[in-house]
Amino acid sequence: MAKSNETQGYLIAPDPGAARLTRPVRGIDQNGQPVDTSVVEERPLTIFLNSQEIVTAMTIGDYPDYLALGFLRNQGMLHTEDVITGVDYDDDLETVVVRTEVETSYEDKLKKKTRTSGCAVGTVFGDMMEGLENVRLPATPVRTSWLYGLAHQINRTPSLYLEAGAIHGSVLCQENRPLVYMEDVGRHNAVDKIAGWMLSERAEAADKILYTTGRLTSEMVIKTAMMGIPVLASRSGFTAWGVEIAREVGLTLIGRMRGQRFICLAGEDRLERDMDPADAPVEEKKHKRKSAE
Amino acid sequence: MAKSNETQGYLIAPDPGAARLTRPVRGIDQNGQPVDTSVVEERPLTIFLNSQEIVTAMTIGDYPDYLALGFLRNQGMLHTEDVITGVDYDDDLETVVVRTEVETSYEDKLKKKTRTSGCAVGTVFGDMMEGLENVRLPATPVRTSWLYGLAHQINRTPSLYLEAGAIHGSVLCQENRPLVYMEDVGRHNAVDKIAGWMLSERAEAADKILYTTGRLTSEMVIKTAMMGIPVLASRSGFTAWGVEIAREVGLTLIGRMRGQRFICLAGEDRLERDMDPADAPVEEKKHKRKSAE
Repeated sequence: MAKSNETQGYLIAPDPGAARLTRPVRGIDQNGQPVDTSVVEERPLTIFLNSQEIVTAMTIGDYPDYLALGFLRNQGMLHTEDVITGVDYDDDLETVVVRTEVETSYEDKLKKKTRTSGCAVGTVFGDMMEGLENVRLPATPVRTSWLYGLAHQINRTPSLYLEAGAIHGSVLCQENRPLVYMEDVGRHNAVDKIAGWMLSERAEAADKILYTTGRLTSEMVIKTAMMGIPVLASRSGFTAWGVEIAREVGLTLIGRMRGQRFICLAGEDRLERDMDPADAPVEEKKHKRKSAE
Repeated sequence: MAKSNETQGYLIAPDPGAARLTRPVRGIDQNGQPVDTSVVEERPLTIFLNSQEIVTAMTIGDYPDYLALGFLRNQGMLHTEDVITGVDYDDDLETVVVRTEVETSYEDKLKKKTRTSGCAVGTVFGDMMEGLENVRLPATPVRTSWLYGLAHQINRTPSLYLEAGAIHGSVLCQENRPLVYMEDVGRHNAVDKIAGWMLSERAEAADKILYTTGRLTSEMVIKTAMMGIPVLASRSGFTAWGVEIAREVGLTLIGRMRGQRFICLAGEDRLERDMDPADAPVEEKKHKRKSAE
């Protein structure tokens, strides 16, 4: 497929025309007239770490291997020292198995927990916070011209969002260039797929910016920090705890980035204000995201 | 507190002024000027079923008892036949323990799973689908005048969303009256709190309508069906699987309900078109929800 202007420069861009990702659905509108809309798919995907079943995620179904790897990495279940020997996706069983050379410390811990307290359901969150203790992100400078340029280009990139809506997007960027644009029904999945790509490609994190359409909650901030990315920007709002964690780990946090406006919640000293906000492109109505919610 | 016009008729309305739910956060805007905004809180809450730790949810922290009860009910971990003997919330430990007279069948099943496969992390989704098999919702008629009236009143009700943004809302309604309006950082939590309230109050479900600001995903449709509510309406979009499940269980599903417009995706034969869409109130700009996302 020839790349359009908007997708030039991307290593991975959305493929809104892919047959598996959307389905036509017929509804009836307020006047009783039939309406055919293109609607995003949602499929269960069960992730295993070796023989241990971890979670069933609801996903659009592209890049299951990246999703599995990124999920395990961002939850702190897979560490840098774990040698990955295989990632096996089974389309029929809707499963991905991530295999490591030796049993991971997570599996080992899980066995102990199972022995002592019956089971370890629900420990996922505690484990995430644990992995965060020693994270201090590099003080990478960010130019405001990059942020404005990224938001403008990403909003105009053909995507499942523009095609069908009801979906979240996350984009891994470097300076003013969007590199990897992932979408999914869950905003966390989109970020996890980027984490999986970074792990597979052994991509540098310190010079990257993560842009997301979703809210800046604690979980989103924790994931970004776990990935080692020092800048997180979103067009949506933020929670108090998301801001608090960003300040603790040294993450530059930008919220409510729409057209010429944004709010910097953490890492203000790293912002290089090289562009007059009045010169930033105004959002065209058709590229405003209504709400994936 | 004297009830304003907009909150009259509610059994539970949002309390956007409550001290624990928001916090002032200072950021720096695009021009380098400080901005103080009111931001929603987000706290961990660990839910136990008797001695079994189930999950840690991120929540704004109001109605922890309803959240715990509703979560367990909507996940199919708590059945109608289970006699609840206590719901104990501990503010310091950030835990809720739901106690039943005898061990639930879920705990029993979990023990078996733990014995056979090491642990049962990640089985939550499968269990939800299992509880859905025999659900067939009643064919309750819905007037379009109710839907328009509800959307209009809910959008104008003082809420954490209008105060601070970055939050989802779900409202239990009867005919044209909103009754219980819950908000939370996670859209599923808002619905679970309504389920918990219904369980505690032994509220009838067959004559209710559930309105949500969030997307109509499979999980949202399953929860509504598990609650026995025959109508689900949202201002947001929908996924293909969400629509499919709604059609299977006999749920009337309304999406993209904004101002005079909506799309009915399932249960069209139950809609009573008693109002000309042109007579429905247009959404005022200040009440449009931008995006909790």
